[in-house]
Amino acid sequence: MCQCDPFSLEPLQYMYGRYTQELGVYAKEEAARLREEGGRRRSVTERSRSLELLEYDKGRCAKCRTQKWMYGGLESNVFLQYLAWVTYPVVLITFSAGFTQILAPQAVGSGIPEMKTILRGVVLKEYLTFKTFVAKVIGLTCALGSGMPLGKEGPFVHIASLCAALLSKFMSLFGGIYENESRNIEMLAAACAVGVGCCFAAPIGGVLFSIEVTSTFFAVRNYWRGFFAATFSAFIFRVLAVWNKDEETITALFKTRFRLDFPFDLQELPAFAVIGIASGFGGALFVYLNRLIVQFIRKQKTINKFLMKKRLLYPALVTLLVSTLTFPPGFGQFMAGKLTQKESLVTLLDNRTWAKQGIAEGFDYIGNSQAWNHPQVNVFVTLVLFIVMKFWMSALATTIPVPCGAFMPVFVIGAAFGRLVGESMAAWFPDGIHSDGTIYPIVPGGYAVVGAAALSGAVTHTVSTAVIVFELTGQISHILPVMIAVILANAVAQSLQPSLYDSIIRIKKLPYLPELGWGHHEKYNIRVEDIMIRDVTYITLNCCYRDLHDVLLAGHLKTLALLESSESMILLGSIERAQLQALLSLQLGRPRRLEYLRDRATAEKKRLSMVSHPGSEDGSQRVNQEVRFQVSTVLTTHTELNVTLYEVSHVWSPQYHTELNVTLYEVSHVWSPQYHTELNVTLYEIAEWEENQLDEQVNFDNCKIDPAPFQLVERTSLHKTHTIFSLLGLDHAYVTSIGRLIGVVSLKELRKAIEGSVAVKGVKVRPPLSSFRDSGTSGTSSSNSENEATELHKLWDRHKSMSLPREHLASDSDEKSQ
Amino acid sequence: MCQCDPFSLEPLQYMYGRYTQELGVYAKEEAARLREEGGRRRSVTERSRSLELLEYDKGRCAKCRTQKWMYGGLESNVFLQYLAWVTYPVVLITFSAGFTQILAPQAVGSGIPEMKTILRGVVLKEYLTFKTFVAKVIGLTCALGSGMPLGKEGPFVHIASLCAALLSKFMSLFGGIYENESRNIEMLAAACAVGVGCCFAAPIGGVLFSIEVTSTFFAVRNYWRGFFAATFSAFIFRVLAVWNKDEETITALFKTRFRLDFPFDLQELPAFAVIGIASGFGGALFVYLNRLIVQFIRKQKTINKFLMKKRLLYPALVTLLVSTLTFPPGFGQFMAGKLTQKESLVTLLDNRTWAKQGIAEGFDYIGNSQAWNHPQVNVFVTLVLFIVMKFWMSALATTIPVPCGAFMPVFVIGAAFGRLVGESMAAWFPDGIHSDGTIYPIVPGGYAVVGAAALSGAVTHTVSTAVIVFELTGQISHILPVMIAVILANAVAQSLQPSLYDSIIRIKKLPYLPELGWGHHEKYNIRVEDIMIRDVTYITLNCCYRDLHDVLLAGHLKTLALLESSESMILLGSIERAQLQALLSLQLGRPRRLEYLRDRATAEKKRLSMVSHPGSEDGSQRVNQEVRFQVSTVLTTHTELNVTLYEVSHVWSPQYHTELNVTLYEVSHVWSPQYHTELNVTLYEIAEWEENQLDEQVNFDNCKIDPAPFQLVERTSLHKTHTIFSLLGLDHAYVTSIGRLIGVVSLKELRKAIEGSVAVKGVKVRPPLSSFRDSGTSGTSSSNSENEATELHKLWDRHKSMSLPREHLASDSDEKSQ
Repeated sequence: MCQCDPFSLEPLQYMYGRYTQELGVYAKEEAARLREEGGRRRSVTERSRSLELLEYDKGRCAKCRTQKWMYGGLESNVFLQYLAWVTYPVVLITFSAGFTQILAPQAVGSGIPEMKTILRGVVLKEYLTFKTFVAKVIGLTCALGSGMPLGKEGPFVHIASLCAALLSKFMSLFGGIYENESRNIEMLAAACAVGVGCCFAAPIGGVLFSIEVTSTFFAVRNYWRGFFAATFSAFIFRVLAVWNKDEETITALFKTRFRLDFPFDLQELPAFAVIGIASGFGGALFVYLNRLIVQFIRKQKTINKFLMKKRLLYPALVTLLVSTLTFPPGFGQFMAGKLTQKESLVTLLDNRTWAKQGIAEGFDYIGNSQAWNHPQVNVFVTLVLFIVMKFWMSALATTIPVPCGAFMPVFVIGAAFGRLVGESMAAWFPDGIHSDGTIYPIVPGGYAVVGAAALSGAVTHTVSTAVIVFELTGQISHILPVMIAVILANAVAQSLQPSLYDSIIRIKKLPYLPELGWGHHEKYNIRVEDIMIRDVTYITLNCCYRDLHDVLLAGHLKTLALLESSESMILLGSIERAQLQALLSLQLGRPRRLEYLRDRATAEKKRLSMVSHPGSEDGSQRVNQEVRFQVSTVLTTHTELNVTLYEVSHVWSPQYHTELNVTLYEVSHVWSPQYHTELNVTLYEIAEWEENQLDEQVNFDNCKIDPAPFQLVERTSLHKTHTIFSLLGLDHAYVTSIGRLIGVVSLKELRKAIEGSVAVKGVKVRPPLSSFRDSGTSGTSSSNSENEATELHKLWDRHKSMSLPREHLASDSDEKSQ
Repeated sequence: MCQCDPFSLEPLQYMYGRYTQELGVYAKEEAARLREEGGRRRSVTERSRSLELLEYDKGRCAKCRTQKWMYGGLESNVFLQYLAWVTYPVVLITFSAGFTQILAPQAVGSGIPEMKTILRGVVLKEYLTFKTFVAKVIGLTCALGSGMPLGKEGPFVHIASLCAALLSKFMSLFGGIYENESRNIEMLAAACAVGVGCCFAAPIGGVLFSIEVTSTFFAVRNYWRGFFAATFSAFIFRVLAVWNKDEETITALFKTRFRLDFPFDLQELPAFAVIGIASGFGGALFVYLNRLIVQFIRKQKTINKFLMKKRLLYPALVTLLVSTLTFPPGFGQFMAGKLTQKESLVTLLDNRTWAKQGIAEGFDYIGNSQAWNHPQVNVFVTLVLFIVMKFWMSALATTIPVPCGAFMPVFVIGAAFGRLVGESMAAWFPDGIHSDGTIYPIVPGGYAVVGAAALSGAVTHTVSTAVIVFELTGQISHILPVMIAVILANAVAQSLQPSLYDSIIRIKKLPYLPELGWGHHEKYNIRVEDIMIRDVTYITLNCCYRDLHDVLLAGHLKTLALLESSESMILLGSIERAQLQALLSLQLGRPRRLEYLRDRATAEKKRLSMVSHPGSEDGSQRVNQEVRFQVSTVLTTHTELNVTLYEVSHVWSPQYHTELNVTLYEVSHVWSPQYHTELNVTLYEIAEWEENQLDEQVNFDNCKIDPAPFQLVERTSLHKTHTIFSLLGLDHAYVTSIGRLIGVVSLKELRKAIEGSVAVKGVKVRPPLSSFRDSGTSGTSSSNSENEATELHKLWDRHKSMSLPREHLASDSDEKSQ
């Protein structure tokens, strides 16, 4: 791990130049090395994906050390020191942003919001590809190496999911169980647990955290899979530390040594509660600040325009600002700027008290703890400055378009806040609070643990951060304070702001179904009929291929409703778009066309053989002729034919275009040379044939029809619809009335309806159609149901008029299908 | 806590007599006191239900102490000692069994299987009543006090749920949010977490355990409610220990003091894995043994008959057997028989090594640990005997019909097994395994923790026992060994046997939907049409009240399908049975009857007033007359009328019977005395009137109709049906084909289908109808779908013949409705 021996004898100038040039190369090489190592190991066992993740961690440490050594080696000149301190992160972040931007922009950001959306059942394109994997891994390595306040939890989740997805894809080559679609979702859910689990060596917390941030309804049968995967990932992660001789045995990542017999006094509980409540407000503020920055940059058109042109300028500027402020000889000395995140956390969780005022023996700040002790400034001021500066820096840094998370910075800020409260308590009660003789001094480290769990819980709206801190510190003695603080922080934060991940989902406009607000849903009286799309594109059982073709051209829905007839509108099932395309291409496809041409050719041949010689022995000759002819035909008729081609293929989707081209070759292939001149005529004949084919009735016999598409009734409430959509992971549902299709609701409409009525500011915008129902109903369920009942007959009468459609005029039914 | 001062000076004989007489009284008084205290406190705060639970715990300790003291005071005579040792638990268990049997038999057993069923959405009658609460609390107190190997986790869950249900019922008096049905389910889910949480002072483990054992799909939004409730319950539970001066501050229940710096060596991991695998087999064996005992007793008719007569004999006999074997001067000396469960656990989790052979200083068995050290017998023999004896004893004891769980006994056995392995390891490697200079001796207590988590995890099929042990011991240092052992134990146990709770569900035949076997469900090609009931009872939109009446008499379904007509069979919605009953009683009810009678009376009166005097001034007189007349009428016409009454009311449900009686009074009330003699005639007229009323068409205007009952299609697969039923907690679903009702599937049919195809022994019994589909299909999904497609047209043709029902003969439709 000492590949960066100090070579301070070399000229500084040279070194500086070298370093700016070589850093990109170094980073690339390093990343490549790690990737290689990771790749090699991945083949050993499925679960060893944690190995790679570990490697990044080490790589990061190595880089941090590089920066520090550089900074240390330049002690003589503050300006050069500053240059070294600042340039290093700026280059790394810029490289990371550029690399990610070029290779796979999907790799930017945390990954948890996207995984939440994917686990909901939505397919995000390009999100789980190998390209994204490479971009995420290298981008994250550089981003973490820069020493900016960025986290790795979200990206780890994404990387683990990428591993799972690629593995699934690879395994599905061998068939078997991996071909199953639902199995893939289970793999992804387990991968999320692995991501969190090996980030903190916290298997239990990992599983719980991943459940909380990614699921709405969790299938308990997936539970132990998650545990299995996360345990092995954490195990391998920590075992490597042992094999590497860093540790003697497997222990916690940030091991604390608080006393076991009397971890805290009951009378300290109010202080823990205060931490919880304050963290709740802080967490909400963080989410708000983060969103504000993103929205500010988006809205400011001049800034936006400028930044769109120079995409790498924004990351560079932010990094410059942050690293300038943390420069240790500058402002950084007042906020322990020279410590990395890991070092800060280790010192903050220390079990000794920093500010011992009453007692003679003061705390001797040794090692990294020295950074907190400024000769002129009180440790409290350092802590306050650290919290305030890191707070906005983290909120700002997480908006940089590089692969990064926000969990770890928030965690550290929370720990600092807890430490601040703890130190204050220790200063207030130097002998502890306990009154029964024995002196149990207050442990500020315990407060730091509580603060870390509370603030990270508030930002992510999770309770399982409590479990994560236990696993991270290896001590569970503060369980009750942690639980109380986390619950209070959650209660406060959830009532003020969405979670950070939901906030990002909203910013990125991902297709996720938001939660219905609590306590409100009884009040909504929106029904499916208010939000459904009435103009459904459908096909009927007795339609012809031309209809199919028109429908395929018109809409972009993945599935289409199959109706009995456009008069009765009775829903028979749904067909996938791909199936219909297959049907259409089967009807107009190569084999049938060839068959037709062959039939025609033989008929022609017969006719011709009457006229000329019966040439049945010229088989081998003809082939040669054909090939030659083929080339010449294409060359000569190319310009002429194109017109026809476009006419014919214009109405079809691109695939028919290419197929038609193929047919051209085939035409020339099948026919004997003597029909050369007739080619143009034949092409028109083909077009005519195809027109005829299009008028034939569709044969659905070999088509895969879903006989049970999900159906709702027009009076299904928004709440019920939401529950069913989230439970079953639906994409769309048909609205039927007595078997007749009257509309369709997709995720889009539902999301609009929910967001429209649960505006962020608390103002409810109700859809226009829902208002008529207010008159006369007092809003209680009984009166609603009466309403339903009285309208039932009307409803029925309305439909009765439609129940014998054959007696209606054609114009009537036409109107309906509009 | 020292209410039982030894009074050994009193004559032993007298004391013995007194004790057998007074124990029941004492237990009752004690329970009453606890209940009172609990009741008083419950009013303080909602979450203080843990208080009561704590009290039971203390009550139990007090009783155990009583038994021990009694046993200690009788040292002079072994026989008397034996009598005292044996009689005490026998009386307590017999009382508990008798009390529970008399007051509320629903209180028997664990409670977790029932809660699992209730949370599934099934309503179990009498299961959440105040009576059950009383029976459970008192029964549990006595059962735990007996010192038998019985647990309290399951009953705590049940008690907490009872508290929640009663609280919900109480709060719903004030209206508001508590009236919501789904809110009650959420309350119950939180209560389950509270039950486990305050049993072990393990809030996180409690939440997770309750999720694992009670849910199939868990709504993540309920998660933090559970944490909130469980944290406060655990907090109050432990805070009371502090206020009681038992503890200085809040710490873990079974605090361990393993060393933190080197908890275990990596090379010990195989030993932990062995514990996990062995525990998996042990857990499966326990479940099997438990079920075997229950089934054996049920099947043996002679035993069964005898036991049915003398219900209390079985508990008494079992208790006698178990307590005889644990009698400390007898066989109990070889198995630490004199320790209570809690004492055993504390000693087993001790961080010192019992069997130190290589090193000079032997472990001095002090305090309770002495029980493990027999002068003649090795500690290994003691442990083995303890494990073997306790194993079958626990399996037997949990079949006693008293409120009891099995978690705690299993937990203790697991700890003993872990300790056995740990001690063996310690004996094998006296200096520890670590080779790098420093000696880290093996900690058998850590093995005990691992064993406890693994065995209890195997029996309950949960992973969260790992979290419970961390919270229970206050140390998380053994996280990886525990996780590995628990996962291995689960993997083994889940492949061999159902969990203990599922086993009990099967034994008790509770209406729970079993899980679909893993990896099998692709193979089932059972569809809804194979299992649905085709003979659906329904009502039509234009039916008359007589049909309603007949339908209500015929079936016992909670909801009925509402169809357009019996010819078209188009499903309009579903109506609750209660709604229909209300409709019927509205039609034939008092107000309308009175109105009819009044109309008739005024008509009569007018007719009469033509004849006799127009008596409009005799109001006050008439009232008196009426009252007198009323009594006489009832007396005189009583026997005569009864015949008519029965004739009329026979076809109705009981409620009409009583109403008719009321009508009799009203008849006499409304009419003036002079119609006295006409009463009999009028009664017949009423019957006639009612017959006419029954022939009227039903007016559904004021009826609450569910317009969107859940619909399936006949080709929906079993797997999909199962998922939808478990996700949405459905009770039944209608099977429709193009809007027409063709069948209904309820939980019962689904359960039969699943159990038929996933037989316990691994033999699949397939429903008869599913076999025809085998011919021609290779079982893959693609060929299945082709099958679907080819049959679609047939299907459609079949229904086409039904689509114009008005042209059909009536006989045709009659056939269909059969």
